[in-house]
Amino acid sequence: MKEATIVGAGLVGSLWAVYLTKAGYNVTIFEARDDIRKADISAGKSINLALSNRGWKALETVGAAEEVRKIAIPMYGRMMHDLEGNLTFQPYGKENEAIYSTSRGDLNAILMTAAENTGKAKILYNHQCIDINLQTNELTFLNKKTGEQVHHKTDVIFGCDGAFSAVRYVGLQRTDRFNFSQNFIADGYREILLPANEDGTHKLDKNALHIWPRGRFMLIALPNEDGSYTCTLFMPHEGGENAFDKVNTREEVDAFFKSTFPDFYALMPQIADEWDNHPLSSLAIMRSYPWHHHKTVLMGDAAHATVPFYGQGMNAGFEDCTVLWELMQKHNENWEAVFEEYSATRKPDGDALQDLSLYNYLVMRDYVADPMFLLRKKIEAKFSTLYPNKWMPLYSQVTFSDIRYSVAHKQGEVQNQVMDEVMAIPGIEEKWDSQEVIDKILSLV
Amino acid sequence: MKEATIVGAGLVGSLWAVYLTKAGYNVTIFEARDDIRKADISAGKSINLALSNRGWKALETVGAAEEVRKIAIPMYGRMMHDLEGNLTFQPYGKENEAIYSTSRGDLNAILMTAAENTGKAKILYNHQCIDINLQTNELTFLNKKTGEQVHHKTDVIFGCDGAFSAVRYVGLQRTDRFNFSQNFIADGYREILLPANEDGTHKLDKNALHIWPRGRFMLIALPNEDGSYTCTLFMPHEGGENAFDKVNTREEVDAFFKSTFPDFYALMPQIADEWDNHPLSSLAIMRSYPWHHHKTVLMGDAAHATVPFYGQGMNAGFEDCTVLWELMQKHNENWEAVFEEYSATRKPDGDALQDLSLYNYLVMRDYVADPMFLLRKKIEAKFSTLYPNKWMPLYSQVTFSDIRYSVAHKQGEVQNQVMDEVMAIPGIEEKWDSQEVIDKILSLV
Ligand SMILES: Cc1cc2nc3c(=O)[nH]c(=O)nc-3n(C[C@H](O)[C@H](O)[C@H](O)COP(=O)(O)OP(=O)(O)OC[C@H]3O[C@@H](n4cnc5c(N)ncnc54)[C@H](O)[C@@H]3O)c2cc1C
Ligand SMILES: Cc1cc2nc3c(=O)[nH]c(=O)nc-3n(C[C@H](O)[C@H](O)[C@H](O)COP(=O)(O)OP(=O)(O)OC[C@H]3O[C@@H](n4cnc5c(N)ncnc54)[C@H](O)[C@@H]3O)c2cc1C
Repeated sequence: MKEATIVGAGLVGSLWAVYLTKAGYNVTIFEARDDIRKADISAGKSINLALSNRGWKALETVGAAEEVRKIAIPMYGRMMHDLEGNLTFQPYGKENEAIYSTSRGDLNAILMTAAENTGKAKILYNHQCIDINLQTNELTFLNKKTGEQVHHKTDVIFGCDGAFSAVRYVGLQRTDRFNFSQNFIADGYREILLPANEDGTHKLDKNALHIWPRGRFMLIALPNEDGSYTCTLFMPHEGGENAFDKVNTREEVDAFFKSTFPDFYALMPQIADEWDNHPLSSLAIMRSYPWHHHKTVLMGDAAHATVPFYGQGMNAGFEDCTVLWELMQKHNENWEAVFEEYSATRKPDGDALQDLSLYNYLVMRDYVADPMFLLRKKIEAKFSTLYPNKWMPLYSQVTFSDIRYSVAHKQGEVQNQVMDEVMAIPGIEEKWDSQEVIDKILSLV
Repeated sequence: MKEATIVGAGLVGSLWAVYLTKAGYNVTIFEARDDIRKADISAGKSINLALSNRGWKALETVGAAEEVRKIAIPMYGRMMHDLEGNLTFQPYGKENEAIYSTSRGDLNAILMTAAENTGKAKILYNHQCIDINLQTNELTFLNKKTGEQVHHKTDVIFGCDGAFSAVRYVGLQRTDRFNFSQNFIADGYREILLPANEDGTHKLDKNALHIWPRGRFMLIALPNEDGSYTCTLFMPHEGGENAFDKVNTREEVDAFFKSTFPDFYALMPQIADEWDNHPLSSLAIMRSYPWHHHKTVLMGDAAHATVPFYGQGMNAGFEDCTVLWELMQKHNENWEAVFEEYSATRKPDGDALQDLSLYNYLVMRDYVADPMFLLRKKIEAKFSTLYPNKWMPLYSQVTFSDIRYSVAHKQGEVQNQVMDEVMAIPGIEEKWDSQEVIDKILSLV
């Protein structure tokens, strides 16, 4: 029997387990946490996340999409809330194109169950990886229930243990010529649960991702199935007027929300009571290379953790499954060849994903509040509808296609230059819908 | 009694131990290796290193310079060897200014002995740090002789355990918002021992650092006291025509040296026999921030490991001692305040050191073979002699002063712009020694 080991039964690890069983592997997954389906613990980090094309595609390949679709709420665009409570809606793509708000815990549970239901994958909980020998494929786990150390020898190892991956820290990072960086950005985040109306309905338009863009910081809200919203405030940890270190006491919380998010405050005047329900957390970009060593490989956040502003972290991790799966066929499961090519070809996509994610923070917290930016996107959308083969907006390339992130990133930069020229046309605000503008773009692409 | 713990009895750790005893501390040093004074092992990495102003200054403060001076060989400049064996000498600074070739092992031994001789520092060998609790100041060591784990609780911890610092990997890297990167450059190095003449004399001019600059790669040689030279070949690991992966067999080694370093080959025709005496090693830049957490701090390579091309790694680590020592007085040994200021103010110097080190690889392997570069440096040296208050060449700022690395780096960039203009004067090769050139520089600074 072919044996494979996965470290981490998070989103990527549990999905990848399903893939491996399809290829006839016996899979053992070691997970540091307890079983989130049984214990009353969260799956960590954000409560819900936006699932989009790359994620769906990877789920579909192994027949896991259907179950997920039942719990996924489509969001067709961004709904911007200004200081006066005025709303502006910006569609994400074409009609029917949406990103899907999905509960992290439920999604993870579906995938773990899917893995177990194959009959070929077993998950060992409360097993924390603490050591790995990359030469002999031996792993050491700490059984957190008994305190004992467990040794496990295997044929091939998939490190799906997230941003703070032990497979990477105690394994790859100690190999010669392994490049690595962990960069925490200046901003942190805190979640806030905006409850449903008493009748269980949503307090805001359910089919949009809500944003309160405030220049240097922002609040966002994604809908949950029970009528509530998971809201997240992203802001600098310290420094400047609006920073987490200035919002501590009940009075400060109250005053901050009253003055900066008045319409949100009106929906949730009890904000000060619930401020401490979720911790203040940090955000980091982690880059590494290579992503493999002999028969061990990194996937998902373990390889390319990013900041969450493009809603692509999980989607990228799921796409890692798609990429590895194709390479498995190509190299006939010669793992070293598979990993070699995966590492070399997928790395630029991980880098691009991270650059795009950082850039999209500016878009969300700042640009979307600027009418000229929205106009720019409207022109792009129009041109793209007229000439779909000549132009796919960057957001669509990233979110609604499976164009490589690195290619999308480059094409986005070219588009940006074109649009800089277009927006410089005198009187563009009046004539944006004219043939002149279309001709201008045609002359530039 | 005040207690302090140092991890690593390398160059920085053993020197810093002397400092701490002067301040009345009882110091315990844990060192992973055996005692290099007793065992027949090398102190690791290069066999000799260039000691310069910042290093001497730190040694002098605690009276350790005198012993070191006995084993230090002055090198007054660079001696370039071209393909035909022609020699060009470029002085490093003013007359009598030199950098000093020093045996790593002997230097380390002098410093360990100095620490022990204070009667207040003890070194525990074969103790490898494997865990650290930054909240409680508890360290765990593996006794490599007995296999037992040793626990040690202390008041303040100095991580002087080098580029692959355990204090950093298992301690600081796991703290929230700790930024870190390890970047291996494309090039590696291999050492070669060029033996003395039979009568014990040196085969090359003893008072120079010898360089065979070859554009994309280089060979250098530093003198040892016994008449031998430690030579180091720096070259890409792979890719291109001249790379380590192309030089493996005896024939390849022979052919490579014969064709690229003919005068060196003439001195050492047995090179192929000795090629494997030293391993092929990698080179990395390691950046981290902050350098402290509560009562634990990083010093030397643990904080800012760099590539060796400016000969400043150890000097910078010794200067860390100078900086910490001054801050200890300033903050009256309030360690958290000391570490806070050390981390914030010294970090830009670590970064500058690393940028300068990378830049100087280009200088050594390439620019010094260019007559126009040498002319440029000659003009700078002349102007600097005439107007010492207006101009100190970058190399002198770094090597013969204690100007902060970050300041030197910036001033160097300004100087570069000035010299670009000077070198663009038509006919500069003829009139470099004229008043016109001096006036030009005066008009620009
Ligand atoms: C605030 C926030 C919002 C986000 N929003 C989105 C979004 O909208 N869309 C999107 O696509 N992405 C989003 N992401 C990113 C997404 O959360 C990650 O990319 C995704 O979780 C990565 O999945 P993973 O399986 O690689 O890692 P994880 O989900 O982190 O899973 C890792 C698993 O490994 C386990 N583990 C860790 N260490 C060990 C060990 N030593 N031994 C054994 N097991 C271990 C963990 O317990 C966990 O179960 C967001 C992230 C954040 C922080
Ligand atoms: C090829 C080369 C040439 C160089 N040339 C120069 C030069 O000319 N001039 C110059 O100034 N610098 C030079 N350097 C840089 C210089 O070697 C370093 O900057 C210097 O050694 C740093 O001193 P350190 O004490 O911080 O670290 P190290 O000298 O590396 O000492 C670290 C000590 O910690 C011990 N240790 C490691 N891990 C543990 C653990 N887990 N537990 C306990 N102990 C541990 C090690 O055994 C070692 O004794 C060169 C470096 C290289 C690689």
